[in-house]
Amino acid sequence: MQWIRYKTSAQRRPRLAVRTEAGTYDLQASYERYRQAGEPAVRGLSAALQTASLRALLGLSGTESFLTSMRQNDERYAVALQIDDRTALLAPLHDPGRIIGIGLNYHDHAREIGQQAPPFPPLFAKWPNSINGPYGFIDLPSQSEAVDYEVELGIVIGARTRCVAPADALSAIFGYTVINDISARDLQFQTSQWLAGKICDGFAPMGPSITERRDLPSWAELTLKTWVNGELRQDGRTRDMIHDPASLVSYLSHLMTLDPGDIIASGTPAGVGMSRKPPCYLKAGDVVRASIAGLGILENRIRASTPKE
Amino acid sequence: MQWIRYKTSAQRRPRLAVRTEAGTYDLQASYERYRQAGEPAVRGLSAALQTASLRALLGLSGTESFLTSMRQNDERYAVALQIDDRTALLAPLHDPGRIIGIGLNYHDHAREIGQQAPPFPPLFAKWPNSINGPYGFIDLPSQSEAVDYEVELGIVIGARTRCVAPADALSAIFGYTVINDISARDLQFQTSQWLAGKICDGFAPMGPSITERRDLPSWAELTLKTWVNGELRQDGRTRDMIHDPASLVSYLSHLMTLDPGDIIASGTPAGVGMSRKPPCYLKAGDVVRASIAGLGILENRIRASTPKE
Repeated sequence: MQWIRYKTSAQRRPRLAVRTEAGTYDLQASYERYRQAGEPAVRGLSAALQTASLRALLGLSGTESFLTSMRQNDERYAVALQIDDRTALLAPLHDPGRIIGIGLNYHDHAREIGQQAPPFPPLFAKWPNSINGPYGFIDLPSQSEAVDYEVELGIVIGARTRCVAPADALSAIFGYTVINDISARDLQFQTSQWLAGKICDGFAPMGPSITERRDLPSWAELTLKTWVNGELRQDGRTRDMIHDPASLVSYLSHLMTLDPGDIIASGTPAGVGMSRKPPCYLKAGDVVRASIAGLGILENRIRASTPKE
Repeated sequence: MQWIRYKTSAQRRPRLAVRTEAGTYDLQASYERYRQAGEPAVRGLSAALQTASLRALLGLSGTESFLTSMRQNDERYAVALQIDDRTALLAPLHDPGRIIGIGLNYHDHAREIGQQAPPFPPLFAKWPNSINGPYGFIDLPSQSEAVDYEVELGIVIGARTRCVAPADALSAIFGYTVINDISARDLQFQTSQWLAGKICDGFAPMGPSITERRDLPSWAELTLKTWVNGELRQDGRTRDMIHDPASLVSYLSHLMTLDPGDIIASGTPAGVGMSRKPPCYLKAGDVVRASIAGLGILENRIRASTPKE
């Protein structure tokens, strides 16, 4: 099952939906029908659906019987959604409690920037202001001239998790998505800490959906690609990861309690603009496509910043 | 006016209160009385008070006339709160959207660790799992043997802010508080990025209150001190800051949109355990007092970790 967040011009607010093999279903309308049929209320679900917050929904218990009826395309409840030209797909999880960035996590990327594979994953943060839609504009910050792409496997946490062993860590993962970890290299290397180049508004396009872990045969067989204006720039494999998803979740869970709706941006393969000779950065008008086969494609256009001050 | 969050054994949930020169007032009870007297409702205020969320409250408009009546100790509404032995003071802002850490921001601290004053502030993140009460236990992580203190001026953002000039940045600041930026040095320097040593559960004791900016004569005349088991370890002055509060808010606001309830932990003066010869770290049973004169005192006991796995 894949999770999406969408908006049509007829609606005042974004809504959540799920896509199964049989079709796409609006969750708010389906839940209303489910309740009208006399099924028991799930505490908190109405509020989570009203704010289209997948994070809030993942924090609830008792959603399973309702979601199973969606998964099974139960005709009594599942209200089909027609995706057409007027349907805007948004970031499926817009309000993560944490966006945990992992640096240097692909062997080929570590090599291209002349670094050893690190024994522990370097961590950085992005905040929800960086979340951007799968087809949203990316605004160039006025103080940067070195904005770069990084296609990454996004790992969405589904359960409160503390001190989990790697062998048990996959069960903490709700699903996977595509993230483009946009990075302003000049700001990133202004100081020893990378955050300044990572946290700008709109610097984390994600989506277009979140695929549940149980629907993905293996995280290790995914192909990650980035194109800029149609030219292939990144072409990596998740099996080249230094720290795999279970190891990352386990490592992080020993540092802090992870919560439903946390997102791990698990690092990028080789081919970033910074490593090209000469370096080649994004400019206004460029179109960046970031894809993970089986998960989806992001397509974002770069836009010049408007002077703010 | 100072803001506190507290809980008594008789209550199921934490509550918000304010302290003025005249007394301390419970906000939920006061707002109920305000409403019963026929004053107009403030949209969202009931929900913010019910969850004792200062972040949510700061995001509201229209609270001013209610808060003015508290500030003026309006007898019709202000419901006094008796603080006694059974009143636990909690972190006044428990759910910040961001905790933005600033590294190397005091001249004397930069010198003690052999660094130049950086032209731009190095940034790191903590997440809300690190928020701890002013008198809460600090649990040593089992994988660290180098847990250290850092008394810091906490800057609480009060308004949505984007690209503000330094001269106008102070108005974005709601208030100030004390933060102890607990840091596991061995984890902090495991990789080039400091986060692993900064993000552990309970690593940001804060409070005991937030003092509104308009009630603080000057941010530059504050004295920051830390004692461990009664021994003075840090004794700094905010005027020794490299990047002052207005410069930090301005710098950050050019990188991203700041929101009400964001907290900036603005760096620590000299005297951290890491810089002592030999280095001297916190151990189970130690009591750490971190104070900023005029803002308050944190007092946290260090506790051994319990093996988790």
